Amino acid sequence: LTKIDSLVKGILERDDLSISKAITIVENDFPESNDLLIQLYPHTGKAAIIGITGPAGSGKSTLVGQLIREYRKMKKTVGVVAVDPTSPFTGGAFLGDRIRMQDYVTGNGVFIRSMATRGNLGGLAKTTKDVVRILDASGKDIVIVETVGVGQAEVGIISVAHTTVLLFAPGLGDEIQALKAGLSEIGDVFVVNKADRENAEKTVNDINSILNTGDIDGTWRPPIIKTIAITGEGTEELINLIDQHREYLKTGVFERRLRKSIETELIEEIKQKFTLHLTNNLKREVDFKSLVNQILKKEIDPYTAAELILRKITIG
Amino acid sequence: LTKIDSLVKGILERDDLSISKAITIVENDFPESNDLLIQLYPHTGKAAIIGITGPAGSGKSTLVGQLIREYRKMKKTVGVVAVDPTSPFTGGAFLGDRIRMQDYVTGNGVFIRSMATRGNLGGLAKTTKDVVRILDASGKDIVIVETVGVGQAEVGIISVAHTTVLLFAPGLGDEIQALKAGLSEIGDVFVVNKADRENAEKTVNDINSILNTGDIDGTWRPPIIKTIAITGEGTEELINLIDQHREYLKTGVFERRLRKSIETELIEEIKQKFTLHLTNNLKREVDFKSLVNQILKKEIDPYTAAELILRKITIG
Repeated sequence: LTKIDSLVKGILERDDLSISKAITIVENDFPESNDLLIQLYPHTGKAAIIGITGPAGSGKSTLVGQLIREYRKMKKTVGVVAVDPTSPFTGGAFLGDRIRMQDYVTGNGVFIRSMATRGNLGGLAKTTKDVVRILDASGKDIVIVETVGVGQAEVGIISVAHTTVLLFAPGLGDEIQALKAGLSEIGDVFVVNKADRENAEKTVNDINSILNTGDIDGTWRPPIIKTIAITGEGTEELINLIDQHREYLKTGVFERRLRKSIETELIEEIKQKFTLHLTNNLKREVDFKSLVNQILKKEIDPYTAAELILRKITIG
Repeated sequence: LTKIDSLVKGILERDDLSISKAITIVENDFPESNDLLIQLYPHTGKAAIIGITGPAGSGKSTLVGQLIREYRKMKKTVGVVAVDPTSPFTGGAFLGDRIRMQDYVTGNGVFIRSMATRGNLGGLAKTTKDVVRILDASGKDIVIVETVGVGQAEVGIISVAHTTVLLFAPGLGDEIQALKAGLSEIGDVFVVNKADRENAEKTVNDINSILNTGDIDGTWRPPIIKTIAITGEGTEELINLIDQHREYLKTGVFERRLRKSIETELIEEIKQKFTLHLTNNLKREVDFKSLVNQILKKEIDPYTAAELILRKITIG
């Protein structure tokens, strides 16, 4: 048994340490990452993948905590990937919310991993997808992906989910307005958390009126519910709605989405593998330095030089 | 004379309409974009490129307006590229600040272009670089690139600048803290704007203490000045500091930075050209659809499939 073989064996036997080691390999893009993912792929596709996203302060981590509690009551195993935004300068993740969630890292059918992500956001979507596959292969019934924010990068990360829960809280109205008609493109279920606060009803109405102007994908009209995550109120109803959405997906929507997601992934994988080949070629290829010199002297332009190098690259 | 030949002629003759048409071609990535940039490249490299960035509310656009006024007094021609963040859903740029700056679009030695950017942020850095080249080739003495924010994407965009001015305002202390030691990596000159407000001195001290802990590139210790952009106070001093930084660059720093910037650009150009070839290949290549089907059926994994396609791609 190679190191990867025994790691795969450990993951399939639901060993937390093996899962943790595998995630580290994928997160750091170690050379054995590709082999590991190739071996795990046939064992994936069983978990229900739930995305939770929303602006800072909407109470995502508290809600995730309640979902874990509820799913555990139902004897379901749960994996959580929490994706943190990272300062491009210090490389450190913003903690805070994370610490609260650590309470639930019991190992008792629950596996939580906070991804402190260096590097670019493009790669983050791929890494998240691959980490979700590890948790899926490890037999988790439910995999939750939590991201902060509702920008372009977060939408890319959350696209791995089958059902996306978009979370808001009263008083964060600007965030809703900024999304406009795009709301229905990313959210399958809407939650107004901290519903005991003033203006909760107004927030529900704000989301409602925006949803009415947006395109609906298929026949699913995203429902809006109110929760108080800190007390657990509304968690059961949320799980019911997630289940209903999962039933809806079975009407052919799921396969269509999965096909689209595989197409996107394949193209991204090809680009990433090309970049690796490019880097290897540039290390061997002395032409690169000489071309940079020619560009600096204005003997050639960068656009023509790029085409020249591209034609010379050997793959494989 | 082809259409592109006459456009290049117009740009070199400083014709605003030709500049505007060329920017539209580059922004939309029209097929003639590559030829246009190839022809313009030998005419670039004369302008002083100044980046202005900082959090929302720091008064960037007002300061840019004052810089334009001051440079015009000195009989210098000025080009401005204002890069807006764009909602990934609506495709519309956040205006507001832009409108205030429009006052200066006189055509009298000044050319201002607001880039309302659809598409991904990776491409935005390339487009900005290419638009700056058009303004540079058109004989502008000064080209200002203004971006909102100080995140990873903005740093990518602003990297085209020779001198980067990092703007803050009293009361935006959190923004400074979030940057931490990375401050000195992006800012060549620091400005505390709205210096008539309470706590301006505290903001200066905050920046100072962070700069003291960061790495300094070479012998340049980024200076910090206070401005009141709304009245123009401090603008002359800022221009002096920008000039001093430009003198410092001449001590070999400039060529080193330019070389690094060309290397990065070349690699990005190669990747972009590869993506174009990939798209063209996938349109012809029936294998793609069949591979996606095999992945869905778990007969093959996406990682192996990507490698298979990459080996089959023909370039040129």
